[in-house]
Amino acid sequence: MAAPEQISSLQNPRLKRLVRLRDRRARDEEGVFLIEGYREIRRALEKGVRLQELHFAPAWFLGENEPALLATAEAAGARLCELGKEAFAKVAYRERPDGLLAVATQWKRTLDDLVLPASPLLLVVEGIEKPGNLGTLLRGADAAGCHAVIVCDPVTDIFNPNVVRASTGVLFGVPLVVAESPAVHAWLRPRGIRIAATTPAAERRYTEADLRGPLAVVMGSEQYGLSEFWLQHADLPVRIPMAGQADSLNVAMAAIITLFEAVRQRTGG
Amino acid sequence: MAAPEQISSLQNPRLKRLVRLRDRRARDEEGVFLIEGYREIRRALEKGVRLQELHFAPAWFLGENEPALLATAEAAGARLCELGKEAFAKVAYRERPDGLLAVATQWKRTLDDLVLPASPLLLVVEGIEKPGNLGTLLRGADAAGCHAVIVCDPVTDIFNPNVVRASTGVLFGVPLVVAESPAVHAWLRPRGIRIAATTPAAERRYTEADLRGPLAVVMGSEQYGLSEFWLQHADLPVRIPMAGQADSLNVAMAAIITLFEAVRQRTGG
Repeated sequence: MAAPEQISSLQNPRLKRLVRLRDRRARDEEGVFLIEGYREIRRALEKGVRLQELHFAPAWFLGENEPALLATAEAAGARLCELGKEAFAKVAYRERPDGLLAVATQWKRTLDDLVLPASPLLLVVEGIEKPGNLGTLLRGADAAGCHAVIVCDPVTDIFNPNVVRASTGVLFGVPLVVAESPAVHAWLRPRGIRIAATTPAAERRYTEADLRGPLAVVMGSEQYGLSEFWLQHADLPVRIPMAGQADSLNVAMAAIITLFEAVRQRTGG
Repeated sequence: MAAPEQISSLQNPRLKRLVRLRDRRARDEEGVFLIEGYREIRRALEKGVRLQELHFAPAWFLGENEPALLATAEAAGARLCELGKEAFAKVAYRERPDGLLAVATQWKRTLDDLVLPASPLLLVVEGIEKPGNLGTLLRGADAAGCHAVIVCDPVTDIFNPNVVRASTGVLFGVPLVVAESPAVHAWLRPRGIRIAATTPAAERRYTEADLRGPLAVVMGSEQYGLSEFWLQHADLPVRIPMAGQADSLNVAMAAIITLFEAVRQRTGG
């Protein structure tokens, strides 16, 4: 690999920019986002995410595979930039950095970009506020084999560093579309995709509904639950029976329970 | 209520002690733990947790119900101690404090303290490292109506402030026992409680096993999964079918999926 640039001064404008990219406005202005950590960067490369820059600090490396990752990134077009230990600590987002921080190109998928099988399973989430929850929802959708995740009216943006981290790289694999709720509904309807929505007000348990066939599981925001819009348009309003405290299940847990029941039914379990 | 003590100096030994109680050793020496936040403290009081002290800073209060909570706590025997805004910021554990921090008495339950129905559903977790995961596991167990949670060989202690927070107060409600794995197994066996353990190596899906009757769902640690001990003693080794990345499901998600399948089967869903 070519001799990388090296930066050690904490006043360097490039370091300042990396810190600025934690803010959504700075990310969106440049059309980029941050990916920190060996595992996440490796997955981004595997999934064809375009890395513009890969900042690295050998003083923080945890393993022996980092040079190979750097070589792969450089071969894929990333500019390598070496940082000193202190400089990297300044730009690292994680509490325990591992010496790898990439700047990647944002992408945008629309509903029409989605290529779905005849009987798709989709997760639709509405107004999610916490990046950690969005990341966990992505993981749950990935584990359940969802063909796409549609993020409606997001409060947090999908390129937030905490979404990247909490999704453990699933963000790079699961087809993900950001859209407004009415547009999503207008897209689902003619495709015959039924809408299952969990709400405490539903009479039917989620296990009593037929979750086979083309299905979108819709989950509402942490604080307000599903909006009137989705409640009114739900073909299958269902409830998850709850013992214990009313708020013991958060949105990610409720989504995982519902998605895996759909998987059970669809695989004849 | 009586006029509370007031502290504002940051050098006050009482403040220093509150900060020290974030460390397990200091907690265990005193036999106490910290509960921060309105919701958690209210739940602790509801569940009969003994509050020794309730530190409060009106400058941080978010609502209007705090005086009533203080009165309830004092009536239940807690000593009230008012703090200035800066002093509270120093002792607060949360990023966004709400001006309430209690020191509560630790408790200890043994396996023999558990009072179970004829056909109990238990969650047994082994070697959990992350407090957040332990808290989420407790929430999942509460939502599924588990009759007890048994924490084997914990790496994190159940009175860690992050467990208290992540459990959203479930810690105070679900019967919880800490014990060593062999003792737990020796206690389950004569009671006819079957052991279901999720492992990728199992042939049978979790949806194909009969999860009715007396059942303990055993989950392993984040990093190592289930130990040989529990794998060997599992009556029902089962696997959760996984699409996507191998690590998309974490221990809390796997537990919730398995527990809610048990609930489905047990309620004829």
